[in-house]
Amino acid sequence: LERSPLRRLVELVARPGLLSLAGGLPAPELLPAEAHADAAAAVLRQDPRALQYGPPHRPLAAAIVRLLARRGVVADPSSILITTGAQQAIDIACRLLVEPGAAVITERAVYGGIRQSLAVVRPSLSVVGTDLEDGMDVDALARLLEGGVRPSLLYAISDGHNPCGVELSPDKRHRLVELSRQYGFVIVEDDAYGLLSYGAPFAPPLLALAPERVIYIGSLSKILAPSLRVGWMVLPACLYQAAMRIKEAIDLETSALNQRVAARLLAEPQLEAHLTLLRRSYAERLAAMLSALAIHFPERARYTRPRGGMFVWVELPPGYGDTWALLERAIAEENVAFAPERCFAMATPSGRALRLSFSTASPAEIEDGVARLGRLLAGSTRQQ
Amino acid sequence: LERSPLRRLVELVARPGLLSLAGGLPAPELLPAEAHADAAAAVLRQDPRALQYGPPHRPLAAAIVRLLARRGVVADPSSILITTGAQQAIDIACRLLVEPGAAVITERAVYGGIRQSLAVVRPSLSVVGTDLEDGMDVDALARLLEGGVRPSLLYAISDGHNPCGVELSPDKRHRLVELSRQYGFVIVEDDAYGLLSYGAPFAPPLLALAPERVIYIGSLSKILAPSLRVGWMVLPACLYQAAMRIKEAIDLETSALNQRVAARLLAEPQLEAHLTLLRRSYAERLAAMLSALAIHFPERARYTRPRGGMFVWVELPPGYGDTWALLERAIAEENVAFAPERCFAMATPSGRALRLSFSTASPAEIEDGVARLGRLLAGSTRQQ
Repeated sequence: LERSPLRRLVELVARPGLLSLAGGLPAPELLPAEAHADAAAAVLRQDPRALQYGPPHRPLAAAIVRLLARRGVVADPSSILITTGAQQAIDIACRLLVEPGAAVITERAVYGGIRQSLAVVRPSLSVVGTDLEDGMDVDALARLLEGGVRPSLLYAISDGHNPCGVELSPDKRHRLVELSRQYGFVIVEDDAYGLLSYGAPFAPPLLALAPERVIYIGSLSKILAPSLRVGWMVLPACLYQAAMRIKEAIDLETSALNQRVAARLLAEPQLEAHLTLLRRSYAERLAAMLSALAIHFPERARYTRPRGGMFVWVELPPGYGDTWALLERAIAEENVAFAPERCFAMATPSGRALRLSFSTASPAEIEDGVARLGRLLAGSTRQQ
Repeated sequence: LERSPLRRLVELVARPGLLSLAGGLPAPELLPAEAHADAAAAVLRQDPRALQYGPPHRPLAAAIVRLLARRGVVADPSSILITTGAQQAIDIACRLLVEPGAAVITERAVYGGIRQSLAVVRPSLSVVGTDLEDGMDVDALARLLEGGVRPSLLYAISDGHNPCGVELSPDKRHRLVELSRQYGFVIVEDDAYGLLSYGAPFAPPLLALAPERVIYIGSLSKILAPSLRVGWMVLPACLYQAAMRIKEAIDLETSALNQRVAARLLAEPQLEAHLTLLRRSYAERLAAMLSALAIHFPERARYTRPRGGMFVWVELPPGYGDTWALLERAIAEENVAFAPERCFAMATPSGRALRLSFSTASPAEIEDGVARLGRLLAGSTRQQ
């Protein structure tokens, strides 16, 4: 099991003074520290079960049902399994569905946490590409299936794609679900960014189209705070009990206190106000990044124009070398960091892509950071 | 994977009005709710990293080193891996050491959480008995090893044994460590109760004798609060990196906030005062239970006389039927609950044993509960 590149990024980001466009972190100044302290104090004063072992906190499941309604999903509280963050949900899904050697399909570039969880169960992995306009290459998926690949699990990120910042088109959503029915595979849909849309809301996730074929994964890490360590799975009834038993074997239960604090932080109308603040702030940063890219990046660079999430994906034209080496130079020469393609690569990477995060830097810093990277890239071609 | 009996017990305990001697829970009135609220407020006010992703919190590792010193262990912070509770540590140890089909040895009756984690990796399990005077049957272990069993993992609970409430004798500690060196197996030592000694401190754990052969597991669930979900592993250097990568694949990291709150709650002199309070309270309850057992239980019942932990183990003489059936009658007829042997059985149970917890009931309730169980047992023999 390799060291997680995501973790190496987190350590990089911790270096003081570095202008980081690398991490998938929420903006620190938008974390609800005061509301959290108030909620924790109230819970500890009023609820004697907050520090104890106990069953899942029902008001949290009810709050998650309301979050899902915002995504256009009607879910029953009994289908929701509360997990210790979304990573644990991914790990449970892998343990639940994948025997050693079983086929698994992902996109070529996805959130690195799935790689870590899959490494433990050692599947036979196939990858498909991601179209920067409309998401996962469903034609390539259909060819794999026609060619005889029978996956136990297909991993999909429909909205606010990490790392690509792309949305799966409505047409592809329908085709993907049809394929899952035709070939009988389960879709693990990672929707950590689904509520972070900056214009019209995202289309409903795959879960809304095929609840019987989808294990949906949600998280509070991006809309409230990572250190809550609260995520969830929405599971088809036939998989629920088995998933719950795996969850219990992993860590017994998710913190009773954190569950109670989370339920309070998800109460209206505070939640609506908080989401509005996040969306307005991130929308500004996204706009700053896209305009800086247009000005400072090579004309032949291709990049996504997300409507949500935290990331822009950039594919550099040939001639700039591997983006991991470029990262090392960016840190050394320009004191700026991004996330190279290799952090997300489920198969041999092109080496030419990178992820820019617009979540933690101010618009001015984003403009400055993208300009520094543009300068580095301009210098790179001159040297060749 | 079966439903965890431990979880079923937790649900039983939640029934209002039931006098429960079943759960392995800390006393609710001894949970440091006020100190926790103060610590959380201070951390959230002062430390902007408390709600964010981040690396392990070094002051917590330092505090754990001090806890280990109380156990007679000299440990380096770099050997400590912070986990989301001790159950996660057990799960990591199982994933790290046990391939499907590999040999594993445990006592016949142990904490049910190990069974859940082992069920996922499907080992070939052998069991040895537990002597109610001096712990694990090390002779039986030696015979298994001489007979050719080559375990990847031996699970041991040296002090405050759950469920048996017994201590491993100093002689057996040395023999166990010698066997691990001779046959080259790793000991996973679960020390969740090691700081809950009510007279002289417990002897140092196996870790102190053979740090190169022991993965030690500790927890704050019994001395501070379960909902912190903070535990730890002390690992030999050669296993550390692999364990950390498994931890990252399971849940990325343990809550930054909970780590910081825990580090504050472990500061002296408050910790010493809190441990003194716990020890004094639990010692009273233990004494109440032992004297009630002497008065109310059948003369031929055997039971342990612990010097710590939370549990007394009772072996009933023949004639009372299976203790799971007895539990159902105890709840229905006497409104009192205990934990039947089956909750802890790694192999076919005798059916005649049960665990009584003295941690959550008052001395008067313990006297009353044991009297009710004694009455049930007296009635049971009359019926036969």
